[in-house]
Amino acid sequence: MTITSSTVRSRTDLCTAIENELSGLIGKRASAATAYGPDFARLWALAGQNVLGGKFVRPLLLMETYDALHQGQESRHRETAISIAAAIELLHYAFLLHDDVIDGDLVRRGHANLIGSLLAEAGTTAGETVRSETAGADGTRAGSALHWAQTGGILMGDMLLAATHQSFARADLPHELRLRLLDLLEHTINETVAGEQLDVGLGDGVIAPDLQTILVMCGYKTATYTFELPLRAAATLAGADFAVENALATAGRHLGLAFQLQDDLLSTFGDPRRHGKDPFSDLREGKETAIIAHARTTTAWPDIEAFFGRPELSVGDGEHVRRHLSRCGAEAFVQGLIEEQMQAFTNQLTSTIPASVRTVLLDLAGQLEGRQS
Amino acid sequence: MTITSSTVRSRTDLCTAIENELSGLIGKRASAATAYGPDFARLWALAGQNVLGGKFVRPLLLMETYDALHQGQESRHRETAISIAAAIELLHYAFLLHDDVIDGDLVRRGHANLIGSLLAEAGTTAGETVRSETAGADGTRAGSALHWAQTGGILMGDMLLAATHQSFARADLPHELRLRLLDLLEHTINETVAGEQLDVGLGDGVIAPDLQTILVMCGYKTATYTFELPLRAAATLAGADFAVENALATAGRHLGLAFQLQDDLLSTFGDPRRHGKDPFSDLREGKETAIIAHARTTTAWPDIEAFFGRPELSVGDGEHVRRHLSRCGAEAFVQGLIEEQMQAFTNQLTSTIPASVRTVLLDLAGQLEGRQS
Repeated sequence: MTITSSTVRSRTDLCTAIENELSGLIGKRASAATAYGPDFARLWALAGQNVLGGKFVRPLLLMETYDALHQGQESRHRETAISIAAAIELLHYAFLLHDDVIDGDLVRRGHANLIGSLLAEAGTTAGETVRSETAGADGTRAGSALHWAQTGGILMGDMLLAATHQSFARADLPHELRLRLLDLLEHTINETVAGEQLDVGLGDGVIAPDLQTILVMCGYKTATYTFELPLRAAATLAGADFAVENALATAGRHLGLAFQLQDDLLSTFGDPRRHGKDPFSDLREGKETAIIAHARTTTAWPDIEAFFGRPELSVGDGEHVRRHLSRCGAEAFVQGLIEEQMQAFTNQLTSTIPASVRTVLLDLAGQLEGRQS
Repeated sequence: MTITSSTVRSRTDLCTAIENELSGLIGKRASAATAYGPDFARLWALAGQNVLGGKFVRPLLLMETYDALHQGQESRHRETAISIAAAIELLHYAFLLHDDVIDGDLVRRGHANLIGSLLAEAGTTAGETVRSETAGADGTRAGSALHWAQTGGILMGDMLLAATHQSFARADLPHELRLRLLDLLEHTINETVAGEQLDVGLGDGVIAPDLQTILVMCGYKTATYTFELPLRAAATLAGADFAVENALATAGRHLGLAFQLQDDLLSTFGDPRRHGKDPFSDLREGKETAIIAHARTTTAWPDIEAFFGRPELSVGDGEHVRRHLSRCGAEAFVQGLIEEQMQAFTNQLTSTIPASVRTVLLDLAGQLEGRQS
């Protein structure tokens, strides 16, 4: 799909509007935070850098859909739509932060995340000067700095979750409309939390890793807040019929699942020079993906299992496992799942969804093809 | 202070109203949760047991103050006041859960907390049956179950924080009034998070443990949401003058700090048969309290420091440290701080605060005297 220059111009304008809204939301809180001392203010400064450095995938989807639903009509709630779009970006970042705490991650997309930044700072500055005898939960200085940094991740996630709700609660809308958005936010958080819990349960071996559970988890953990939430919010704010909202949500869920499955394929089979991640991290972590769920059902599994979830996996062993995953049909199987989801997505693009909005969705789907990162 | 039978009757009625509201809020969510499977539903079931088993200190303070501000007048927003009171109890429990995750605690007041319950269940049921080779972040089965349980604590805390905001956002009030309550909620969360961060920074040795910082931490972490929030919310909902609201908030902060300082004294010097806690846990954890901050300034400190923050502290050594803390004047010093706070509290009880509300505050203050647990 080619992006025309008018699309580019309008997307740039949207990005600016979203960025301004986020700057305002975060800037106001960052200034208020200085009253509570440098460590508290640091949380907001780091969160601001990370949020404003994002690609605004979710807010853009909301605004492009909202605008497309208004082609030629008056738009009553556009400013509120921008504020809800920005709030969804804060929600995304709140989820990422708590996910990073849960997974023990210090890096995201090649850069230190908030926790990694706090850890580096605690290790080199305050930690050195205050109490040299300090020990963390595991009785070490390093453990103490990590505990401090992860606490920052939990607390900043809490504040971003609160900020998200504040924007929804303050929306300048008729009360009934605000209540519908609040219902949507509640549904989204429940489903995302359920997905995160499934993901962790799969990783911790508390939940059995069958394919159905893994697909449900992907839908809950990613598709709901990344695709369904912006689409439903846009439809609600634009006053679209419930049939339109539901068709958009269903289309969004199929697209979201396709994206997530493609992420899994890219992580294992993609070119690390393009996606920038450790090509064997999923295997080292023992991540329960659809690829692995399929491989478990094949005769290749004993050969793969011996290496699965081993943090010390060598590059040679990783390549060996990858070949097995490909030969046993797991790669092709997941490619088939993606095609099924894309077909189901296309089937939703009937006349229920206005042509202008179909264009937005097809543009998004176009990003799936030839994706390398 | 003697509690009259009419006070008792009305408090019982209030407890019932608060309990019904909480049952409704949690019950609705617990039923919706079953759609996401047993593990997700379990989070709501456990949270419900814990929340409904509480003493409702904060909601009672809100409602008693609200009712006292209405003596003889029509009460327009009483149902909303009950829903806000219940929401504050959910906020309290959200803070407790994330605090327990941060502190690695599995027990609260002698019973397994939500994390402890999830850990026990994961260790004995699902964990056994699914993947015997599973390892947690630290590479052990036990580590895996703990990770699963602590994740439950983070996620349930997030959902309770969301539920708190939902109640505030949906309050059936004029928009201006709802915005004032939302401001109050935001202020409260910022201050409580700042307090939690200070507390963790003190424990991890990232922040210097001087008395002033410790007192600020106690105010932020406890007094704000336990005393100031219910009092300000009551005043706002009752339409009280801003002067009344501020006088109540100031009185509440002094009382809150006095309660927190008394908690520290009871933990170290109180009768464990009465308060039910390990009498040396604060010393073993190396908790930076006002008692310790004073002791650091005395010549007794080297003798105390040798034992401070040692998890293996024996009962004999604990008693030795306690004697030192008493003899060096730290116990008396903190008793003096409590008296100062109580004096400042009393000074606030001028005619700005209606007599009926002063009675509520004096009743609360009366609970401080002779407190053993």
